[in-house]
Amino acid sequence: MADDHGDKPMKADTNTLKPPQMGLKLVHLDLKGAPPKISYLTQILPLLSNLGANGILLEYEDMFPYEGNLQVLRSPNAYSPASIRELLNLARMLNFEIIPLVQTIGHMEFVLKHKIFSHLREVKYFPNSLNPHKKESMEIVKFMIDQIVALHKDLKWLHIGSDEVYYLGEGEESKKLFATSQTNADSLFLSHVKAVASYVLATYPDVKPIFWDDMLRNISEEKLQESMLSRFAQPMIWDYNSNIDTHNMMLLIQKYQRTGFSHLWFASAFKGATGVAQALTPIRYHLANQLQWLKVVEAVPRNSIQLRGIALTGWQRYDHFSVLCELLPVGIPSLAVCLQTLKNGRFSEKEENFVKSCLGFKAFKINSVSSEDAGSFPGSDVFNRVTQIITLQKSVDKLLEENMYIKGWFSNYHRKKKFVHPIMLRHFEGAVRSAHVNWERVVFELSTALEKIYYPDTVEEWKEEHVNPTLTRLQHFVQDMDKALASGT
Amino acid sequence: MADDHGDKPMKADTNTLKPPQMGLKLVHLDLKGAPPKISYLTQILPLLSNLGANGILLEYEDMFPYEGNLQVLRSPNAYSPASIRELLNLARMLNFEIIPLVQTIGHMEFVLKHKIFSHLREVKYFPNSLNPHKKESMEIVKFMIDQIVALHKDLKWLHIGSDEVYYLGEGEESKKLFATSQTNADSLFLSHVKAVASYVLATYPDVKPIFWDDMLRNISEEKLQESMLSRFAQPMIWDYNSNIDTHNMMLLIQKYQRTGFSHLWFASAFKGATGVAQALTPIRYHLANQLQWLKVVEAVPRNSIQLRGIALTGWQRYDHFSVLCELLPVGIPSLAVCLQTLKNGRFSEKEENFVKSCLGFKAFKINSVSSEDAGSFPGSDVFNRVTQIITLQKSVDKLLEENMYIKGWFSNYHRKKKFVHPIMLRHFEGAVRSAHVNWERVVFELSTALEKIYYPDTVEEWKEEHVNPTLTRLQHFVQDMDKALASGT
Repeated sequence: MADDHGDKPMKADTNTLKPPQMGLKLVHLDLKGAPPKISYLTQILPLLSNLGANGILLEYEDMFPYEGNLQVLRSPNAYSPASIRELLNLARMLNFEIIPLVQTIGHMEFVLKHKIFSHLREVKYFPNSLNPHKKESMEIVKFMIDQIVALHKDLKWLHIGSDEVYYLGEGEESKKLFATSQTNADSLFLSHVKAVASYVLATYPDVKPIFWDDMLRNISEEKLQESMLSRFAQPMIWDYNSNIDTHNMMLLIQKYQRTGFSHLWFASAFKGATGVAQALTPIRYHLANQLQWLKVVEAVPRNSIQLRGIALTGWQRYDHFSVLCELLPVGIPSLAVCLQTLKNGRFSEKEENFVKSCLGFKAFKINSVSSEDAGSFPGSDVFNRVTQIITLQKSVDKLLEENMYIKGWFSNYHRKKKFVHPIMLRHFEGAVRSAHVNWERVVFELSTALEKIYYPDTVEEWKEEHVNPTLTRLQHFVQDMDKALASGT
Repeated sequence: MADDHGDKPMKADTNTLKPPQMGLKLVHLDLKGAPPKISYLTQILPLLSNLGANGILLEYEDMFPYEGNLQVLRSPNAYSPASIRELLNLARMLNFEIIPLVQTIGHMEFVLKHKIFSHLREVKYFPNSLNPHKKESMEIVKFMIDQIVALHKDLKWLHIGSDEVYYLGEGEESKKLFATSQTNADSLFLSHVKAVASYVLATYPDVKPIFWDDMLRNISEEKLQESMLSRFAQPMIWDYNSNIDTHNMMLLIQKYQRTGFSHLWFASAFKGATGVAQALTPIRYHLANQLQWLKVVEAVPRNSIQLRGIALTGWQRYDHFSVLCELLPVGIPSLAVCLQTLKNGRFSEKEENFVKSCLGFKAFKINSVSSEDAGSFPGSDVFNRVTQIITLQKSVDKLLEENMYIKGWFSNYHRKKKFVHPIMLRHFEGAVRSAHVNWERVVFELSTALEKIYYPDTVEEWKEEHVNPTLTRLQHFVQDMDKALASGT
């Protein structure tokens, strides 16, 4: 089915490889941090299509307009059903497959952080994993699934998450059960995922569940086969490293194939995978990740297992409670490079030129995008200002921390005592004042750009992390200079 | 004369070189920052003698008990005449030569910062250089010299400073003079130093003036010879680099010799020359500086110029207004290494063992002094605690800035909003709390050690620079953790 959307045949061309056979190319929209306004998503969808995407993996988290007893899960900025429908209509026109993602056992922070659901935690103090023993846990999961499916028409797949189920088996009920039976954490995981998936299959016969594969990796083949999970759900193998070990990856794929899985998904990353607080996207790193995945795609034994597609993940946070990674517009150039690479099986001059022209760059070189040349894609002003801010921030840090005259003649002690050698002040006063003025200007421009795409809380959060510490430092420094000057020497 | 004090003949020994012929080995006590109590100086004088020193270059700056119209120059902690006499008596018993140093044209910040003397600045806003045109300027200099000489008996030399006379010639009177005559800044310098030196010679016929040579380096040989400065004062050539260019140094010495100077001094450094805010002394660097000077000493043509001695400078600040460099006790191991090197012409195992035993180290290796083995020399507790603090500071910085869990899950934004993922907190809470407790303990021990040697303002200043920023950071971090924990997730 997926292949219906897939890779259109290309004209024969000495420059053209046979396009890789990988099914859907899904762009992951992670809404668990810095969710863009729907208006921005509708702006970029045509661009993604043009670049080679033909689907969206839509991780709503708290941006879904949950209702009834789930209403508490909604973020204050949650999308309205109407605006989601608008997005889905556009997606349909672009012939995009939409696959919603809802967590159903691990990474349930956005549910379990709420007091009214905290009794459903596997471990009392840790709001990440759901207690799989409680009947109410499965009810909540079903409610979420039902509400999401209801808003989507003609779903073919539903991603039920299930990665990183930390501390599963460490709750009181689990420990009691383990003490009196052969059960362990692996069995708990397998049986919960099977229960969720079978609910999906029974209730929505056209919808096939997908789940993250990481919890399976250390489960024995025997146990996995016994569980018969392969009859209920399709694993999505994720690896975001630039140097994927393709040999071990093939061993993993063979394990899944031997344990009965006949359909398979991959997940690479175009952003949000190189540092918990990453602000700029290292394109080269993500390109390397796609190139490794292309090798894996090439090597998958097609007779025994069907590759359904690949999701290009763009993580917005490492989890519900962590800082923001790169903003979506900042990751767009990387996404363009990654999509073109997966589409054409390489990233050569041809793909580079295509990306350049799609994004409206005058000159585009991976890893050396100049802040003078911001491109003209939706959000390029955010991309541009963030690049400027990060560069400027480094230069301010260097100035305030490494300038010999500041270190030696306007240190903490001088600033506390409000005195300074007037000759020495001349060596840094101009540089600090102009850094301050510059900073205020770029921050103003950034705020304007951010406000077009983001809700106020995201603007506040990003600025609190990346703008305010430097702003406060500069403001205090200038105030202290003024006071020292006024006190005179 | 100097050689009377000099290098006693040593027993023939296959391990023994002929001791270098360099006259006096003066230890520079720079009192312009962190002046130790006299009681500490009297503790270390015998140690310095034992290590090979036979003189002190005593730079009082504002620690001299100036009187009369100069009383304003006195630091609140200035030594009393009685305590200076105590120090001088001890020095006499140890057969030490004492050479006081008083600035007389440049680095007059401790004079010109005071309102009542600010009209004597060469440039109105810059308190470093004296206006040499004003009669009152020379009067002040004479008063200072008279008061210093009066407190010292049997002086043979007086160092009249005169280095780094920044902005000389840029005052209004200088500019007017230059416009109507052949005079320039070099002439101004030469004539002022000559005037000061001839005052010394005329008033105290037994006292020979010494001055820093740096202002001469770019003055032409012809001009220097014409000035006949060589009849009035002896230059002290300073170079604190680990890689002194000995070829150029010999050219400079030849220049001074050709322009009539018959007596010469050198100045190396044992601390305070590797960074304006340096806290720990890089011994290897200063050892290399002495080894280079030994090469120069060896090469001086003895028939034409007499080497009077070498001063091992130990700068306490780069100037009156800058931060503190290494505290004196922190520089003692370096001073010991440098003195032994100059005394014996090398730093071999023998010298290393001698230093080890003099300073009471269990094991002594240059650049790898362990904070477990603090030695037993006077001030070794300060040396020890400062070493600990700097090491600890680096580890706290690393923890708070680089720990992935802090960066990702307890950033500025989290701390402002007082929330934290309780699982993630576990990854850093213990480390931060124990760093905080550790820091408080070491700081307490350091304060106790510092208070034995230093006046309260020095203790405050050092702590403000090296202790309080980290302490405040840790305190705020712990407070924010407590608040986030209390707010609960």
